[in-house]
Amino acid sequence: MTTAIRSEFDQGIALTPRPGGPGLYDGELGAGWQIGGGINGGLLLAMAGHALSLEHAEHPDPVSISGYYLSASRPGPATVSTEVIRSGRSLTTSTASLVQTGEDGLPVERLRVLAGFGDLAAAAGEVHTTALPPQMPPPERCIGMEHAPRQLIEQAALLERLDLRLDPATVGWALGEPSKKGRIQGWFRLADGRDPDPLLLLLVADALPPVTFDLGMPGWAPTIELTVHLRARPVPGWLRVTHSTRNLADGHFEEDAEIWDESGRLVAQSRQLARAPRPV
Amino acid sequence: MTTAIRSEFDQGIALTPRPGGPGLYDGELGAGWQIGGGINGGLLLAMAGHALSLEHAEHPDPVSISGYYLSASRPGPATVSTEVIRSGRSLTTSTASLVQTGEDGLPVERLRVLAGFGDLAAAAGEVHTTALPPQMPPPERCIGMEHAPRQLIEQAALLERLDLRLDPATVGWALGEPSKKGRIQGWFRLADGRDPDPLLLLLVADALPPVTFDLGMPGWAPTIELTVHLRARPVPGWLRVTHSTRNLADGHFEEDAEIWDESGRLVAQSRQLARAPRPV
Repeated sequence: MTTAIRSEFDQGIALTPRPGGPGLYDGELGAGWQIGGGINGGLLLAMAGHALSLEHAEHPDPVSISGYYLSASRPGPATVSTEVIRSGRSLTTSTASLVQTGEDGLPVERLRVLAGFGDLAAAAGEVHTTALPPQMPPPERCIGMEHAPRQLIEQAALLERLDLRLDPATVGWALGEPSKKGRIQGWFRLADGRDPDPLLLLLVADALPPVTFDLGMPGWAPTIELTVHLRARPVPGWLRVTHSTRNLADGHFEEDAEIWDESGRLVAQSRQLARAPRPV
Repeated sequence: MTTAIRSEFDQGIALTPRPGGPGLYDGELGAGWQIGGGINGGLLLAMAGHALSLEHAEHPDPVSISGYYLSASRPGPATVSTEVIRSGRSLTTSTASLVQTGEDGLPVERLRVLAGFGDLAAAAGEVHTTALPPQMPPPERCIGMEHAPRQLIEQAALLERLDLRLDPATVGWALGEPSKKGRIQGWFRLADGRDPDPLLLLLVADALPPVTFDLGMPGWAPTIELTVHLRARPVPGWLRVTHSTRNLADGHFEEDAEIWDESGRLVAQSRQLARAPRPV
Protein backbone atom coordinates (compact mmCIF):
# COMPACT_ATOMS: atom_id res chain seq x y z
CA MET A 1 0.00 0.00 0.00
CA THR A 2 1.27 3.45 -0.85
CA THR A 3 -0.26 6.70 0.28
CA ALA A 4 -0.93 7.53 -3.36
CA ILE A 5 -3.06 4.42 -4.06
CA ARG A 6 -5.04 3.39 -1.05
CA SER A 7 -7.09 0.23 -1.21
CA GLU A 8 -10.88 0.31 -1.11
CA PHE A 9 -10.82 -1.67 2.14
CA ASP A 10 -8.47 0.78 3.85
CA GLN A 11 -10.69 3.63 2.68
CA GLY A 12 -13.72 1.71 3.91
CA ILE A 13 -12.43 1.46 7.48
CA ALA A 14 -10.54 4.78 7.56
CA LEU A 15 -10.89 6.72 10.81
CA THR A 16 -10.01 10.20 12.00
CA PRO A 17 -9.32 10.68 15.71
CA ARG A 18 -11.70 13.30 17.08
CA PRO A 19 -9.65 16.21 18.48
CA GLY A 20 -10.11 16.48 22.22
CA GLY A 21 -12.27 13.35 22.38
CA PRO A 22 -10.10 10.57 23.77
CA GLY A 23 -10.99 7.22 22.26
CA LEU A 24 -13.38 8.76 19.70
CA TYR A 25 -12.99 8.22 15.95
CA ASP A 26 -14.97 9.42 12.94
CA GLY A 27 -15.47 7.30 9.84
CA GLU A 28 -17.69 7.06 6.80
CA LEU A 29 -19.65 3.94 5.87
CA GLY A 30 -19.40 3.69 2.09
CA ALA A 31 -22.36 2.70 -0.09
CA GLY A 32 -19.98 0.28 -1.82
CA TRP A 33 -20.07 -2.03 1.23
CA GLN A 34 -23.84 -2.52 1.26
CA ILE A 35 -25.48 -5.87 1.27
CA GLY A 36 -29.21 -6.52 1.44
CA GLY A 37 -30.00 -2.94 2.42
CA GLY A 38 -27.44 -2.48 5.22
CA ILE A 39 -23.66 -2.21 5.47
CA ASN A 40 -21.88 -5.57 5.63
CA GLY A 41 -21.42 -6.69 9.24
CA GLY A 42 -17.84 -7.78 8.65
CA LEU A 43 -16.89 -4.29 7.47
CA LEU A 44 -18.47 -2.77 10.58
CA LEU A 45 -16.50 -5.18 12.78
CA ALA A 46 -13.32 -4.28 10.88
CA MET A 47 -13.98 -0.54 11.37
CA ALA A 48 -14.55 -1.01 15.11
CA GLY A 49 -11.47 -3.26 15.27
CA HIS A 50 -9.48 -0.57 13.45
CA ALA A 51 -10.39 1.95 16.15
CA LEU A 52 -9.21 -0.45 18.85
CA SER A 53 -5.93 -1.14 17.03
CA LEU A 54 -5.30 2.62 16.90
CA GLU A 55 -6.20 2.96 20.58
CA HIS A 56 -3.60 0.46 21.85
CA ALA A 57 -0.76 0.30 19.34
CA GLU A 58 1.28 -2.16 21.44
CA HIS A 59 -1.55 -4.69 20.97
CA PRO A 60 -2.68 -3.91 17.42
CA ASP A 61 -4.25 -7.24 16.41
CA PRO A 62 -7.65 -8.67 17.32
CA VAL A 63 -7.10 -12.09 18.96
CA SER A 64 -10.77 -12.54 19.86
CA ILE A 65 -13.46 -10.06 18.89
CA SER A 66 -17.22 -10.31 19.48
CA GLY A 67 -19.75 -8.03 17.84
CA TYR A 68 -23.44 -7.71 18.74
CA TYR A 69 -25.45 -6.09 15.95
CA LEU A 70 -28.11 -3.69 17.19
CA SER A 71 -29.65 -2.03 14.14
CA ALA A 72 -29.07 -1.90 10.38
CA SER A 73 -26.32 0.53 9.37
CA ARG A 74 -26.72 3.01 6.52
CA PRO A 75 -24.17 4.63 4.21
CA GLY A 76 -22.90 7.83 5.80
CA PRO A 77 -20.94 9.09 8.80
CA ALA A 78 -20.30 6.83 11.77
CA THR A 79 -18.54 7.38 15.07
CA VAL A 80 -16.61 4.72 16.97
CA SER A 81 -16.04 5.23 20.68
CA THR A 82 -13.60 2.97 22.50
CA GLU A 83 -12.81 2.15 26.10
CA VAL A 84 -10.00 0.01 27.47
CA ILE A 85 -11.20 -2.38 30.18
CA ARG A 86 -7.91 -4.01 31.12
CA SER A 87 -4.34 -3.81 29.83
CA GLY A 88 -2.43 -7.04 30.38
CA ARG A 89 1.00 -8.16 29.31
CA SER A 90 -0.13 -10.15 26.29
CA LEU A 91 -3.71 -8.93 25.82
CA THR A 92 -5.63 -5.68 26.07
CA THR A 93 -9.37 -6.15 26.57
CA SER A 94 -11.53 -3.31 25.39
CA THR A 95 -14.94 -2.36 24.10
CA ALA A 96 -16.08 -0.30 21.12
CA SER A 97 -19.38 1.15 20.05
CA LEU A 98 -20.27 2.16 16.48
CA VAL A 99 -22.95 4.84 16.34
CA GLN A 100 -24.74 6.70 13.53
CA THR A 101 -27.23 9.54 13.59
CA GLY A 102 -30.79 8.35 12.97
CA GLU A 103 -33.37 10.07 10.78
CA ASP A 104 -34.70 11.83 13.87
CA GLY A 105 -31.27 13.33 14.54
CA LEU A 106 -30.66 11.15 17.59
CA PRO A 107 -27.70 8.77 17.92
CA VAL A 108 -28.45 5.12 17.09
CA GLU A 109 -26.00 2.42 18.10
CA ARG A 110 -25.32 -0.09 15.31
CA LEU A 111 -22.74 -2.39 16.83
CA ARG A 112 -21.27 -3.07 20.27
CA VAL A 113 -17.93 -4.86 20.39
CA LEU A 114 -16.01 -6.62 23.15
CA ALA A 115 -12.51 -7.79 22.25
CA GLY A 116 -9.09 -8.97 23.34
CA PHE A 117 -6.23 -7.53 21.29
CA GLY A 118 -2.62 -8.73 21.20
CA ASP A 119 0.33 -8.90 18.84
CA LEU A 120 0.03 -11.78 16.41
CA ALA A 121 3.52 -11.04 15.05
CA ALA A 122 4.92 -12.07 18.45
CA ALA A 123 3.50 -15.59 18.12
CA ALA A 124 5.96 -18.45 18.16
CA GLY A 125 4.62 -20.17 15.07
CA GLU A 126 4.13 -23.60 16.63
CA VAL A 127 1.11 -25.47 15.28
CA HIS A 128 -0.43 -28.76 16.43
CA THR A 129 -3.60 -29.10 14.47
CA THR A 130 -5.85 -31.82 13.16
CA ALA A 131 -7.75 -29.33 11.00
CA LEU A 132 -7.19 -29.70 7.27
CA PRO A 133 -7.55 -26.96 4.64
CA PRO A 134 -10.67 -27.30 2.51
CA GLN A 135 -10.27 -29.10 -0.78
CA MET A 136 -11.43 -27.12 -3.80
CA PRO A 137 -10.35 -26.53 -7.39
CA PRO A 138 -7.84 -23.71 -8.04
CA PRO A 139 -9.29 -20.17 -8.33
CA GLU A 140 -9.26 -20.21 -12.15
CA ARG A 141 -11.61 -23.22 -12.07
CA CYS A 142 -13.98 -21.73 -9.48
CA ILE A 143 -17.03 -19.54 -10.06
CA GLY A 144 -16.53 -15.77 -10.04
CA MET A 145 -19.28 -13.39 -9.02
CA GLU A 146 -19.75 -12.36 -12.67
CA HIS A 147 -21.79 -15.57 -12.85
CA ALA A 148 -23.90 -14.78 -9.77
CA PRO A 149 -27.65 -14.26 -10.08
CA ARG A 150 -28.39 -10.64 -11.01
CA GLN A 151 -30.72 -10.31 -8.03
CA LEU A 152 -27.81 -11.16 -5.72
CA ILE A 153 -25.42 -8.66 -7.30
CA GLU A 154 -27.96 -5.84 -7.27
CA GLN A 155 -28.42 -6.19 -3.53
CA ALA A 156 -24.76 -6.63 -2.76
CA ALA A 157 -22.53 -3.77 -3.88
CA LEU A 158 -20.02 -5.36 -1.52
CA LEU A 159 -19.32 -8.10 -4.06
CA GLU A 160 -17.78 -5.57 -6.49
CA ARG A 161 -15.01 -4.93 -3.94
CA LEU A 162 -14.14 -8.64 -3.77
CA ASP A 163 -12.58 -11.23 -6.01
CA LEU A 164 -14.61 -14.17 -4.76
CA ARG A 165 -14.35 -17.55 -6.53
CA LEU A 166 -16.77 -20.13 -5.17
CA ASP A 167 -16.16 -23.86 -5.33
CA PRO A 168 -18.45 -25.18 -8.12
CA ALA A 169 -19.48 -28.00 -5.73
CA THR A 170 -21.14 -25.44 -3.41
CA VAL A 171 -22.93 -23.12 -5.86
CA GLY A 172 -25.89 -25.30 -6.82
CA TRP A 173 -28.14 -22.77 -5.07
CA ALA A 174 -27.34 -20.20 -7.79
CA LEU A 175 -28.91 -22.61 -10.31
CA GLY A 176 -31.90 -23.41 -8.12
CA GLU A 177 -30.35 -26.64 -6.87
CA PRO A 178 -29.05 -26.04 -3.32
CA SER A 179 -27.17 -29.04 -1.93
CA LYS A 180 -29.00 -28.73 1.42
CA LYS A 181 -25.70 -29.62 3.09
CA GLY A 182 -25.24 -26.15 4.55
CA ARG A 183 -21.83 -25.43 3.10
CA ILE A 184 -20.39 -22.69 0.88
CA GLN A 185 -16.68 -22.33 0.25
CA GLY A 186 -14.34 -20.50 -2.04
CA TRP A 187 -11.28 -18.38 -2.67
CA PHE A 188 -11.17 -14.77 -1.47
CA ARG A 189 -9.06 -11.77 -2.20
CA LEU A 190 -9.79 -8.08 -2.53
CA ALA A 191 -10.52 -6.98 -6.10
CA ASP A 192 -7.85 -4.27 -5.89
CA GLY A 193 -5.21 -6.78 -4.79
CA ARG A 194 -4.60 -5.49 -1.24
CA ASP A 195 -3.00 -8.30 0.77
CA PRO A 196 -4.75 -9.80 3.77
CA ASP A 197 -4.02 -8.72 7.35
CA PRO A 198 -5.83 -9.31 10.65
CA LEU A 199 -8.37 -6.50 10.14
CA LEU A 200 -9.27 -7.80 6.68
CA LEU A 201 -10.00 -11.23 8.19
CA LEU A 202 -12.86 -9.60 10.14
CA LEU A 203 -14.47 -8.68 6.83
CA VAL A 204 -13.76 -12.08 5.30
CA ALA A 205 -15.54 -13.86 8.17
CA ASP A 206 -18.82 -12.34 6.96
CA ALA A 207 -18.24 -11.74 3.24
CA LEU A 208 -19.52 -14.91 1.54
CA PRO A 209 -23.21 -15.31 0.63
CA PRO A 210 -25.21 -16.57 3.65
CA VAL A 211 -24.82 -20.32 4.08
CA THR A 212 -28.64 -20.55 4.17
CA PHE A 213 -28.56 -20.08 0.36
CA ASP A 214 -27.26 -23.65 0.27
CA LEU A 215 -30.25 -24.77 2.38
CA GLY A 216 -32.59 -23.43 -0.28
CA MET A 217 -33.43 -20.28 1.67
CA PRO A 218 -32.79 -17.15 -0.39
CA GLY A 219 -32.82 -13.79 1.33
CA TRP A 220 -30.50 -12.04 3.74
CA ALA A 221 -29.76 -13.35 7.19
CA PRO A 222 -29.20 -10.60 9.77
CA THR A 223 -26.34 -11.30 12.16
CA ILE A 224 -27.17 -11.23 15.86
CA GLU A 225 -23.68 -11.98 17.11
CA LEU A 226 -20.32 -12.66 15.42
CA THR A 227 -17.14 -13.74 17.19
CA VAL A 228 -13.86 -14.09 15.31
CA HIS A 229 -10.76 -15.77 16.75
CA LEU A 230 -7.57 -14.82 14.94
CA ARG A 231 -5.00 -17.56 15.11
CA ALA A 232 -2.16 -16.20 12.96
CA ARG A 233 -1.20 -13.33 10.64
CA PRO A 234 -2.05 -14.34 7.08
CA VAL A 235 0.68 -14.45 4.44
CA PRO A 236 0.09 -12.47 1.21
CA GLY A 237 -2.08 -14.07 -1.45
CA TRP A 238 -5.40 -15.86 -1.74
CA LEU A 239 -7.47 -16.92 1.26
CA ARG A 240 -9.65 -20.03 1.34
CA VAL A 241 -12.90 -19.55 3.23
CA THR A 242 -15.51 -22.09 4.31
CA HIS A 243 -18.95 -21.30 5.70
CA SER A 244 -21.01 -24.08 7.22
CA THR A 245 -24.07 -24.62 9.40
CA ARG A 246 -25.50 -27.69 11.10
CA ASN A 247 -28.38 -26.45 13.19
CA LEU A 248 -31.20 -24.26 11.89
CA ALA A 249 -33.96 -24.10 14.49
CA ASP A 250 -36.59 -21.66 15.68
CA GLY A 251 -35.56 -19.11 13.10
CA HIS A 252 -31.90 -19.02 14.15
CA PHE A 253 -28.82 -20.70 12.71
CA GLU A 254 -25.11 -20.69 13.38
CA GLU A 255 -22.65 -19.94 10.60
CA ASP A 256 -19.13 -21.24 11.22
CA ALA A 257 -16.33 -19.84 9.09
CA GLU A 258 -12.76 -20.94 8.70
CA ILE A 259 -10.17 -18.85 6.89
CA TRP A 260 -6.97 -20.42 5.59
CA ASP A 261 -4.06 -18.50 4.05
CA GLU A 262 -1.97 -19.39 1.04
CA SER A 263 0.62 -21.15 3.22
CA GLY A 264 -2.11 -23.61 4.26
CA ARG A 265 -2.44 -22.20 7.77
CA LEU A 266 -5.78 -21.74 9.59
CA VAL A 267 -5.60 -18.01 10.29
CA ALA A 268 -9.10 -17.39 11.69
CA GLN A 269 -12.16 -19.22 12.94
CA SER A 270 -15.49 -17.52 13.45
CA ARG A 271 -19.04 -18.32 14.42
CA GLN A 272 -22.10 -16.15 14.12
CA LEU A 273 -25.66 -16.56 15.29
CA ALA A 274 -28.02 -15.21 12.66
CA ARG A 275 -31.72 -14.97 11.98
CA ALA A 276 -32.89 -17.29 9.22
CA PRO A 277 -34.30 -15.51 6.17
CA ARG A 278 -38.08 -15.24 6.17
CA PRO A 279 -39.73 -17.52 3.59
CA VAL A 280 -40.13 -15.57 0.33
CA MET B 1 -37.02 -26.55 43.30
CA THR B 2 -38.67 -25.58 46.58
CA THR B 3 -37.69 -22.69 48.76
CA ALA B 4 -36.88 -25.19 51.52
CA ILE B 5 -34.31 -27.14 49.52
CA ARG B 6 -32.43 -24.93 47.13
CA SER B 7 -29.99 -26.51 44.73
CA GLU B 8 -26.27 -25.89 45.01
CA PHE B 9 -26.29 -24.26 41.58
CA ASP B 10 -29.05 -21.82 42.51
CA GLN B 11 -27.13 -20.97 45.68
CA GLY B 12 -23.98 -20.61 43.61
CA ILE B 13 -25.46 -17.94 41.35
CA ALA B 14 -27.78 -16.32 43.96
CA LEU B 15 -27.88 -12.52 43.79
CA THR B 16 -29.31 -9.78 45.97
CA PRO B 17 -30.29 -6.52 44.28
CA ARG B 18 -28.38 -3.65 45.86
CA PRO B 19 -30.89 -1.18 47.36
CA GLY B 20 -30.74 2.13 45.56
CA GLY B 21 -28.20 0.87 43.03
CA PRO B 22 -30.09 0.24 39.80
CA GLY B 23 -28.66 -2.73 37.92
CA LEU B 24 -26.32 -3.70 40.78
CA TYR B 25 -26.37 -7.16 42.36
CA ASP B 26 -24.37 -8.77 45.16
CA GLY B 27 -23.37 -12.43 45.12
CA GLU B 28 -20.93 -14.80 46.76
CA LEU B 29 -18.53 -17.01 44.81
CA GLY B 30 -18.49 -20.32 46.65
CA ALA B 31 -15.27 -22.29 47.25
CA GLY B 32 -17.21 -25.35 46.03
CA TRP B 33 -17.02 -24.05 42.44
CA GLN B 34 -13.24 -23.79 42.27
CA ILE B 35 -11.18 -25.38 39.59
CA GLY B 36 -7.43 -25.12 39.19
CA GLY B 37 -7.17 -22.26 41.69
CA GLY B 38 -9.96 -20.02 40.38
CA ILE B 39 -13.75 -20.14 40.20
CA ASN B 40 -15.08 -22.05 37.19
CA GLY B 41 -15.64 -19.72 34.23
CA GLY B 42 -19.02 -21.26 33.41
CA LEU B 43 -20.31 -20.48 36.89
CA LEU B 44 -19.15 -16.86 36.56
CA LEU B 45 -20.94 -16.60 33.22
CA ALA B 46 -24.10 -18.09 34.79
CA MET B 47 -23.95 -15.57 37.66
CA ALA B 48 -23.58 -12.65 35.25
CA GLY B 49 -26.36 -14.12 33.10
CA HIS B 50 -28.54 -14.45 36.18
CA ALA B 51 -28.16 -10.72 36.86
CA LEU B 52 -29.19 -9.92 33.29
CA SER B 53 -32.23 -12.21 33.49
CA LEU B 54 -33.33 -10.37 36.66
CA GLU B 55 -32.74 -7.02 34.97
CA HIS B 56 -35.07 -7.65 32.00
CA ALA B 57 -37.70 -10.19 33.04
CA GLU B 58 -39.53 -10.04 29.69
CA HIS B 59 -36.38 -11.42 28.05
CA PRO B 60 -35.12 -13.81 30.74
CA ASP B 61 -33.06 -16.25 28.64
CA PRO B 62 -29.59 -15.82 27.19
CA VAL B 63 -29.78 -16.38 23.41
CA SER B 64 -26.17 -15.40 22.78
CA ILE B 65 -23.75 -14.52 25.56
CA SER B 66 -20.04 -13.70 25.30
CA GLY B 67 -17.71 -13.50 28.27
CA TYR B 68 -14.18 -12.11 28.30
CA TYR B 69 -12.19 -13.29 31.32
CA LEU B 70 -9.96 -10.61 32.81
CA SER B 71 -8.44 -12.05 35.99
CA ALA B 72 -8.77 -15.20 38.13
CA SER B 73 -11.75 -15.09 40.51
CA ARG B 74 -11.45 -16.05 44.19
CA PRO B 75 -14.03 -17.43 46.62
CA GLY B 76 -15.83 -14.57 48.32
CA PRO B 77 -18.12 -11.63 47.58
CA ALA B 78 -18.67 -10.46 44.02
CA THR B 79 -20.71 -7.64 42.53
CA VAL B 80 -22.40 -7.75 39.15
CA SER B 81 -23.29 -4.46 37.49
CA THR B 82 -25.54 -4.48 34.43
CA GLU B 83 -26.46 -2.03 31.71
CA VAL B 84 -29.08 -2.39 28.98
CA ILE B 85 -27.76 -1.28 25.58
CA ARG B 86 -30.88 -1.79 23.47
CA SER B 87 -34.34 -3.21 24.11
CA GLY B 88 -35.86 -4.73 21.00
CA ARG B 89 -39.05 -6.67 20.40
CA SER B 90 -37.45 -10.12 20.50
CA LEU B 91 -34.03 -9.39 22.01
CA THR B 92 -32.57 -7.18 24.71
CA THR B 93 -28.84 -6.55 24.31
CA SER B 94 -26.99 -5.72 27.48
CA THR B 95 -23.65 -5.83 29.22
CA ALA B 96 -22.57 -7.07 32.65
CA SER B 97 -19.41 -6.75 34.67
CA LEU B 98 -18.41 -9.05 37.54
CA VAL B 99 -16.08 -7.39 40.03
CA GLN B 100 -14.38 -8.49 43.25
CA THR B 101 -12.28 -6.57 45.74
CA GLY B 102 -8.57 -7.29 45.35
CA GLU B 103 -6.07 -7.82 48.15
CA ASP B 104 -5.21 -4.14 48.02
CA GLY B 105 -8.85 -3.23 48.64
CA LEU B 106 -9.38 -1.94 45.12
CA PRO B 107 -12.02 -3.33 42.75
CA VAL B 108 -10.76 -5.89 40.23
CA GLU B 109 -12.90 -6.84 37.25
CA ARG B 110 -13.05 -10.60 36.66
CA LEU B 111 -15.42 -10.91 33.73
CA ARG B 112 -17.02 -8.61 31.17
CA VAL B 113 -20.10 -9.90 29.38
CA LEU B 114 -21.97 -8.80 26.26
CA ALA B 115 -25.22 -10.63 25.55
CA GLY B 116 -28.52 -10.80 23.72
CA PHE B 117 -31.41 -12.09 25.85
CA GLY B 118 -34.81 -13.28 24.65
CA ASP B 119 -37.56 -15.70 25.61
CA LEU B 120 -36.72 -19.26 24.56
CA ALA B 121 -40.18 -20.43 25.69
CA ALA B 122 -41.66 -18.33 22.87
CA ALA B 123 -39.79 -20.34 20.22
CA ALA B 124 -41.85 -22.17 17.63
CA GLY B 125 -40.09 -25.49 18.00
CA GLU B 126 -39.25 -25.98 14.32
CA VAL B 127 -35.95 -27.72 13.73
CA HIS B 128 -34.09 -28.33 10.45
CA THR B 129 -30.77 -29.73 11.48
CA THR B 130 -28.12 -32.01 10.08
CA ALA B 131 -26.38 -32.23 13.48
CA LEU B 132 -26.63 -35.60 15.20
CA PRO B 133 -26.46 -36.28 18.94
CA PRO B 134 -23.17 -37.82 20.05
CA GLN B 135 -23.10 -41.59 20.33
CA MET B 136 -22.00 -42.88 23.73
CA PRO B 137 -22.91 -45.70 26.14
CA PRO B 138 -25.70 -45.04 28.65
CA PRO B 139 -24.70 -43.18 31.87
CA GLU B 140 -24.43 -46.37 33.92
CA ARG B 141 -21.74 -47.64 31.54
CA CYS B 142 -19.77 -44.38 31.52
CA ILE B 143 -16.99 -43.29 33.86
CA GLY B 144 -17.96 -41.31 36.97
CA MET B 145 -15.62 -38.80 38.54
CA GLU B 146 -14.99 -41.23 41.45
CA HIS B 147 -12.57 -42.86 39.02
CA ALA B 148 -10.83 -39.59 38.13
CA PRO B 149 -7.15 -39.09 38.97
CA ARG B 150 -6.80 -37.81 42.55
CA GLN B 151 -4.76 -34.84 41.33
CA LEU B 152 -7.71 -33.76 39.17
CA ILE B 153 -10.27 -34.04 41.97
CA GLU B 154 -8.12 -32.16 44.48
CA GLN B 155 -7.87 -29.18 42.14
CA ALA B 156 -11.51 -29.24 41.12
CA ALA B 157 -14.00 -28.93 43.98
CA LEU B 158 -16.46 -28.14 41.18
CA LEU B 159 -16.61 -31.83 40.24
CA GLU B 160 -18.30 -32.68 43.57
CA ARG B 161 -21.31 -30.57 42.50
CA LEU B 162 -21.68 -32.53 39.26
CA ASP B 163 -22.74 -36.00 38.24
CA LEU B 164 -20.45 -36.28 35.25
CA ARG B 165 -20.12 -39.61 33.40
CA LEU B 166 -17.51 -39.57 30.67
CA ASP B 167 -17.63 -41.79 27.60
CA PRO B 168 -15.01 -44.53 28.20
CA ALA B 169 -13.80 -43.94 24.62
CA THR B 170 -12.65 -40.42 25.58
CA VAL B 171 -10.99 -40.96 28.98
CA GLY B 172 -7.71 -42.57 27.90
CA TRP B 173 -5.94 -39.44 29.18
CA ALA B 174 -6.87 -40.42 32.78
CA LEU B 175 -4.83 -43.62 32.27
CA GLY B 176 -1.91 -41.84 30.62
CA GLU B 177 -3.14 -42.74 27.12
CA PRO B 178 -4.72 -39.63 25.58
CA SER B 179 -6.31 -40.34 22.20
CA LYS B 180 -4.76 -37.15 20.73
CA LYS B 181 -8.03 -36.69 18.84
CA GLY B 182 -9.01 -33.64 20.90
CA ARG B 183 -12.41 -34.90 22.05
CA ILE B 184 -14.02 -35.46 25.47
CA GLN B 185 -17.70 -36.26 25.84
CA GLY B 186 -20.09 -37.49 28.47
CA TRP B 187 -23.36 -37.24 30.37
CA PHE B 188 -24.00 -34.30 32.69
CA ARG B 189 -26.43 -33.57 35.46
CA LEU B 190 -26.16 -31.76 38.76
CA ALA B 191 -25.34 -34.04 41.69
CA ASP B 192 -28.34 -32.74 43.61
CA GLY B 193 -30.71 -33.52 40.76
CA ARG B 194 -31.71 -29.96 39.84
CA ASP B 195 -33.07 -30.00 36.29
CA PRO B 196 -31.34 -28.07 33.50
CA ASP B 197 -32.46 -24.62 32.38
CA PRO B 198 -30.84 -21.96 30.20
CA LEU B 199 -28.64 -20.53 32.99
CA LEU B 200 -27.35 -24.00 33.88
CA LEU B 201 -26.28 -24.50 30.25
CA LEU B 202 -23.80 -21.64 30.72
CA LEU B 203 -22.09 -23.69 33.43
CA VAL B 204 -22.26 -26.88 31.38
CA ALA B 205 -20.47 -25.23 28.44
CA ASP B 206 -17.34 -24.99 30.60
CA ALA B 207 -17.73 -27.86 33.11
CA LEU B 208 -15.92 -30.80 31.50
CA PRO B 209 -12.17 -31.29 31.92
CA PRO B 210 -10.24 -29.22 29.35
CA VAL B 211 -10.16 -30.94 25.97
CA THR B 212 -6.38 -30.48 25.99
CA PHE B 213 -6.23 -33.42 28.47
CA ASP B 214 -7.06 -35.58 25.45
CA LEU B 215 -4.12 -34.04 23.57
CA GLY B 216 -1.78 -35.24 26.32
CA MET B 217 -1.49 -31.81 27.92
CA PRO B 218 -2.38 -31.92 31.60
CA GLY B 219 -2.90 -28.68 33.46
CA TRP B 220 -5.59 -26.02 33.43
CA ALA B 221 -6.39 -23.97 30.41
CA PRO B 222 -7.47 -20.39 31.23
CA THR B 223 -10.37 -19.14 29.13
CA ILE B 224 -9.81 -15.92 27.21
CA GLU B 225 -13.28 -15.73 25.66
CA LEU B 226 -16.38 -17.94 25.80
CA THR B 227 -19.51 -17.46 23.70
CA VAL B 228 -22.59 -19.63 24.21
CA HIS B 229 -25.53 -19.73 21.79
CA LEU B 230 -28.70 -21.14 23.37
CA ARG B 231 -30.91 -22.81 20.82
CA ALA B 232 -33.77 -24.24 22.94
CA ARG B 233 -34.90 -24.71 26.54
CA PRO B 234 -33.68 -28.14 27.72
CA VAL B 235 -36.19 -30.75 28.90
CA PRO B 236 -35.61 -32.28 32.36
CA GLY B 237 -33.08 -35.08 32.65
CA TRP B 238 -29.55 -35.85 31.54
CA LEU B 239 -27.58 -33.68 29.16
CA ARG B 240 -25.04 -35.00 26.68
CA VAL B 241 -22.00 -32.76 26.25
CA THR B 242 -19.17 -32.89 23.72
CA HIS B 243 -15.95 -30.88 23.84
CA SER B 244 -13.67 -30.86 20.85
CA THR B 245 -10.73 -28.94 19.42
CA ARG B 246 -9.03 -28.98 16.03
CA ASN B 247 -6.48 -26.21 16.11
CA LEU B 248 -3.90 -25.74 18.84
CA ALA B 249 -1.38 -23.14 17.72
CA ASP B 250 0.84 -20.50 19.28
CA GLY B 251 -0.33 -21.39 22.75
CA HIS B 252 -4.03 -20.93 21.99
CA PHE B 253 -6.76 -23.44 21.18
CA GLU B 254 -10.49 -23.35 20.56
CA GLU B 255 -12.81 -25.58 22.57
CA ASP B 256 -16.16 -26.22 20.89
CA ALA B 257 -18.97 -27.60 23.03
CA GLU B 258 -22.35 -28.98 22.08
CA ILE B 259 -25.04 -29.68 24.64
CA TRP B 260 -27.93 -32.03 23.82
CA ASP B 261 -30.93 -32.63 26.06
CA GLU B 262 -32.69 -35.89 26.82
CA SER B 263 -35.18 -35.35 23.98
CA GLY B 264 -32.25 -35.45 21.54
CA ARG B 265 -32.30 -31.74 20.82
CA LEU B 266 -29.21 -29.56 20.42
CA VAL B 267 -29.91 -26.98 23.15
CA ALA B 268 -26.63 -25.04 23.13
CA GLN B 269 -23.44 -24.58 21.13
CA SER B 270 -20.40 -22.82 22.51
CA ARG B 271 -16.87 -21.99 21.56
CA GLN B 272 -14.10 -20.69 23.73
CA LEU B 273 -10.60 -19.47 22.98
CA ALA B 274 -8.25 -20.62 25.73
CA ARG B 275 -4.56 -20.59 26.54
CA ALA B 276 -2.92 -23.97 26.21
CA PRO B 277 -1.56 -25.37 29.47
CA ARG B 278 2.15 -24.75 29.98
CA PRO B 279 4.26 -27.91 29.63
CA VAL B 280 4.60 -29.50 33.10
